[in-house]
Amino acid sequence: MRKYSIGVLGATGAVGREMLRQLEQSDIAISRLLPLASGRQEHRSIWFRGDCIPVQAAGENVFAGLDFVLGAVSGEVSKMYCPAILKAGAIYIDNSSAFRLQSGVPLVVPEINGEEVRGQQLIANPNCSTIITLMAVAAIHQLSPIVRLWACTYQAVSGAGQGGLSELHRQLRQWEKEEAPGVQVFCAPILGNVIPCIGETMENGYTSEEMKLQNEGRKILNTPALRASCTCVRVPVERCHCIAVTVQTKEKISAEAARAAIAQFPGCVLTEDVPENLPMPCNVSRDKRVWVGRVREDLAMGNALTLWCCGDQLIKGAAGNAVGILERCIEE
Amino acid sequence: MRKYSIGVLGATGAVGREMLRQLEQSDIAISRLLPLASGRQEHRSIWFRGDCIPVQAAGENVFAGLDFVLGAVSGEVSKMYCPAILKAGAIYIDNSSAFRLQSGVPLVVPEINGEEVRGQQLIANPNCSTIITLMAVAAIHQLSPIVRLWACTYQAVSGAGQGGLSELHRQLRQWEKEEAPGVQVFCAPILGNVIPCIGETMENGYTSEEMKLQNEGRKILNTPALRASCTCVRVPVERCHCIAVTVQTKEKISAEAARAAIAQFPGCVLTEDVPENLPMPCNVSRDKRVWVGRVREDLAMGNALTLWCCGDQLIKGAAGNAVGILERCIEE
Repeated sequence: MRKYSIGVLGATGAVGREMLRQLEQSDIAISRLLPLASGRQEHRSIWFRGDCIPVQAAGENVFAGLDFVLGAVSGEVSKMYCPAILKAGAIYIDNSSAFRLQSGVPLVVPEINGEEVRGQQLIANPNCSTIITLMAVAAIHQLSPIVRLWACTYQAVSGAGQGGLSELHRQLRQWEKEEAPGVQVFCAPILGNVIPCIGETMENGYTSEEMKLQNEGRKILNTPALRASCTCVRVPVERCHCIAVTVQTKEKISAEAARAAIAQFPGCVLTEDVPENLPMPCNVSRDKRVWVGRVREDLAMGNALTLWCCGDQLIKGAAGNAVGILERCIEE
Repeated sequence: MRKYSIGVLGATGAVGREMLRQLEQSDIAISRLLPLASGRQEHRSIWFRGDCIPVQAAGENVFAGLDFVLGAVSGEVSKMYCPAILKAGAIYIDNSSAFRLQSGVPLVVPEINGEEVRGQQLIANPNCSTIITLMAVAAIHQLSPIVRLWACTYQAVSGAGQGGLSELHRQLRQWEKEEAPGVQVFCAPILGNVIPCIGETMENGYTSEEMKLQNEGRKILNTPALRASCTCVRVPVERCHCIAVTVQTKEKISAEAARAAIAQFPGCVLTEDVPENLPMPCNVSRDKRVWVGRVREDLAMGNALTLWCCGDQLIKGAAGNAVGILERCIEE
């Protein structure tokens, strides 16, 4: 059995830590694990499969000998290191938005378009809400092409990284002490609030986060004419993004047929509509799968279904999907 | 100036308390205020415009001499007392769902169809999310009739009454002590979670709460053909419901024209799309108005707009709307 040498760029952030956890729990045989972070995190070390491994400073000369690099850094940092990673001969699986829409770079959800990794050295991991939304949508898309898509999101604070999670925890402690909530990461307090704005606002009134579903969805589903409209909202949840989705299909698909397709789709769990079993963060946190429920025929439009999805955005929405891509690269 | 004798049925609940606050702050001249509650709340008293007033036990014989009764009780209790209230000659403004769809009973949002109160003795107050959603929708409806409507809600715990609020507060204290969250009111922990199920699930897969927008919306806007589809979700917010709304109109309305109509609509505030000023619970709590923002042309469908609304559901969504109806009855 071949063993692999794997680097994780940004190993100390929220997604990087989860990548280490997902690699640790995977069946991948690893000869060398190299956690990389910015210089100031260098002194740390991490435990991995029983070994204590020092975190090394990222730099252009650290990638030699690696088979894979998983990237959990900003788009800017990703662009900076990408040439060195590719020159070193490693396959780079990047979680940032830097290369997602670049022509020739596959944008992959393994269960949907995993075959696109074949022969590629640079592979992009999609946006977290997009992955979680498209898992159920892809199951329906198999039955009849998706024409239109609406999504309203309920996104966890850890989607903004470790800093978002720390901000929620700090505000929880401040609530107890009856102190005013300290606001650093988000534009307003997140405890006891919802914030209907994630990312930069574009000229059309949508945010950068909201445009990802249409832009990335078209590429992943290979449907250039797909029309998607989105409202992205931050909620005071630690991990797991939820999405209320309405899809219009070319032909009418019954709720029953959609449920059957979702139940059979790899990586999806169809839940019974019993209140306590519904897809929600308290049930789905730390699960690798996307939970889907409340599948029903849309009341406002023909040939349309409305459903509810929930996935752990650090796992299926980021680290788990990236490790899934890596596993698929090994298989191919 | 005429003075009015006003009873509040259910005066110790979350909505009842807010009704007392809204009456206190109003310009209505009140000769007698009668707070009524179930027998076990009888020993309490409330402060109202400088007087300490004992809460009295509700009963069929307490309504004599009242001009108005505001109801903040369950549908069942409302149905029980309604005949006695009407027999006593009072106008009954009921916040429950008991009479909302009953033919001949006006269902009123004063800014939208306030004229319907004229000559009526029983007037129903609509569902909280419906009121908050329809305020902005009615402004657009003036420009071109609404044909289809989609809504995803982000509903505060106090929508489930005082018990919902207590449950969130209890779970906040338990978080601090690292205790497991106690679940009594909702079907799952609400702190750090979102729950995509409010009300009973119907045969079509929608919940009773989700059907209210279509059923009540048709009656309030006088549009029997309106098609509305809704996903109702509980979020860990104390007060204020938010709603992501998409409306399709008969003719195309530009985002600019919609913004102008919303800005002029009584009881609506149009916010600039600056992140910290957006309609969200931290900005809107205890405000009587519905805040509307992020008005943009829908990307998935023609002749459609997508927007974001937030209103304090104890005020505009319940008590404030009921007192608004009372004021309108006095004017007419």
